[in-house]
Amino acid sequence: MSEFDLINQFFKNTKVKRDDVLLGIGDDCAMLSPPSGKTLAVSTDTLISGVHFPESTSAEDIAYKSLAVNLSDLAAMGAEPAWVSLAISLPDSNVEWLAAFMRGFNELAERFNVALIGGDTTQGALSITLNVTGFVDAKLALKRANAKVGDIIFVTGTIGDASIGLDLILNNVNTPDVFTGDYKSYCIDRLNRPYPQVIAGQLLTEFVVAAIDISDGLKADLNHICKASNVGAIVNIENLPTSDALLAFYNNKPDWQNIITAGDDYELCFTCSKDKVTEMLSLMESNNIKTTCIGEVVSGSGVKCMFDNELLNFEQTGYNHF
Amino acid sequence: MSEFDLINQFFKNTKVKRDDVLLGIGDDCAMLSPPSGKTLAVSTDTLISGVHFPESTSAEDIAYKSLAVNLSDLAAMGAEPAWVSLAISLPDSNVEWLAAFMRGFNELAERFNVALIGGDTTQGALSITLNVTGFVDAKLALKRANAKVGDIIFVTGTIGDASIGLDLILNNVNTPDVFTGDYKSYCIDRLNRPYPQVIAGQLLTEFVVAAIDISDGLKADLNHICKASNVGAIVNIENLPTSDALLAFYNNKPDWQNIITAGDDYELCFTCSKDKVTEMLSLMESNNIKTTCIGEVVSGSGVKCMFDNELLNFEQTGYNHF
Repeated sequence: MSEFDLINQFFKNTKVKRDDVLLGIGDDCAMLSPPSGKTLAVSTDTLISGVHFPESTSAEDIAYKSLAVNLSDLAAMGAEPAWVSLAISLPDSNVEWLAAFMRGFNELAERFNVALIGGDTTQGALSITLNVTGFVDAKLALKRANAKVGDIIFVTGTIGDASIGLDLILNNVNTPDVFTGDYKSYCIDRLNRPYPQVIAGQLLTEFVVAAIDISDGLKADLNHICKASNVGAIVNIENLPTSDALLAFYNNKPDWQNIITAGDDYELCFTCSKDKVTEMLSLMESNNIKTTCIGEVVSGSGVKCMFDNELLNFEQTGYNHF
Repeated sequence: MSEFDLINQFFKNTKVKRDDVLLGIGDDCAMLSPPSGKTLAVSTDTLISGVHFPESTSAEDIAYKSLAVNLSDLAAMGAEPAWVSLAISLPDSNVEWLAAFMRGFNELAERFNVALIGGDTTQGALSITLNVTGFVDAKLALKRANAKVGDIIFVTGTIGDASIGLDLILNNVNTPDVFTGDYKSYCIDRLNRPYPQVIAGQLLTEFVVAAIDISDGLKADLNHICKASNVGAIVNIENLPTSDALLAFYNNKPDWQNIITAGDDYELCFTCSKDKVTEMLSLMESNNIKTTCIGEVVSGSGVKCMFDNELLNFEQTGYNHF
């Protein structure tokens, strides 16, 4: 199958149609009409087989995750997703694989009304690079530099589940009896199909918070906020939101160091000024977004982790790509 | 060197600064302010080592070419380049290699005032994916579907040089005595450092032409215009613009089939209605852009090649990526 046949069969006629896409796939460029008065938020992420997902991952999950982690960057800016370009390198033009890939991709694209506007298909080691664009009000964007001393630190959802999923797939670890098959599926799903907190991000623009999505581990990512804002942070480890699956996996003795340094959570970590916390929490609750207070922004630098008011000394700080 | 050190050293503080980049590298997303009244033209191209450039290509040339072929897509739409995202996969974090890569990249980015607004650095087989955005007036864009029966077909510059460059590098071919070292350097340069016809593209928006950049070979690419416009094309092979180097390489007997099916020319092929040809040629000449009439748009479909008024029957139609 030629590159052009692939484009026609899989990429050209996806379901999401948007009025701001004047010209889609099939010319030298896509032509897009951005809304007036809004700023564009743009992000690029590459996922490589064996690095960003286990080689055994299904085509559907690879696509879902690729789009999810890119949308997660838009979420961390508070942007409304709009367009995506898909550059994919494939060892060969396996039609069944591509059909499954596009099922996973389209499922998430349709959920967030993201139009596939272009891309490139090349032969090579399996690798996916997406470029996503969303819209945001420049003054309300959730910049990392927005944190101020005294702000409260929150995290959406639960953390640590994806790292268990990865452990289960790669290391085939022994698990306690209380860790059921359902828990196992849940953790693997959290790894392969992270839910990008796009709605949460947009809701948070009301409060001009600093936000980041947790991709390299809570501690390392919160540290990015600290650096950008010239502040420090204290995290109260015992407050970290965890799932029943995680507690079962660790037999109620969570390995906190692993949980805050393992990546792939794709939850939002954000700060909020004290006077807006009640309003923010009420808005999040009414949208069914679990939101947990985990610490406070302080003067200084770096992320300090406390447990029962004692300072913990963790060494590893996050995933390093080299 | 960590991913973050790489970003700080090589990607964060490039020279091109644009007022429409509100937030550059260093947050979850870049924030961009598009000009009102203009449409965005967006394109993505991936270049893989050993597929899109010989493995022996220098880091500087790889970067230059990667940006050039992406800007060439903007040129083929008549768009003014503005922003670029760079996703690069590297086997290891070789600092010298990256420094050379960014020299080649910045050279071209500075020439066309393109701001590097984001990207991703990953470990993997050498591969570069760029996403470029430019601005164009939607009504004046050089869409492939703009060609009409009776239009005249043109090409900028000369074609076939890059394919000689590739032959020289990969096959170490014997060349005639008249093919000097200067000619050799010229052809290799045409392969490694194609000049994107960005200025030509923008000038052509005055004439609402159909255009495409020649990446897969003149015949295959002109055929894309034919398909999109529901027309056919006749190309008069003897009129194809060639360099002195090419004539020397072929001992004045050019292999036309190879020349029109080899890719990597990155010149523009475009159509122009007869009544605008004089004005268009005069504008191109005053901007020192070599522009040659090579044929005519006809009814029907497909590209027919004539030589001395006889129909030629070439089989191969272009580079197929699978």
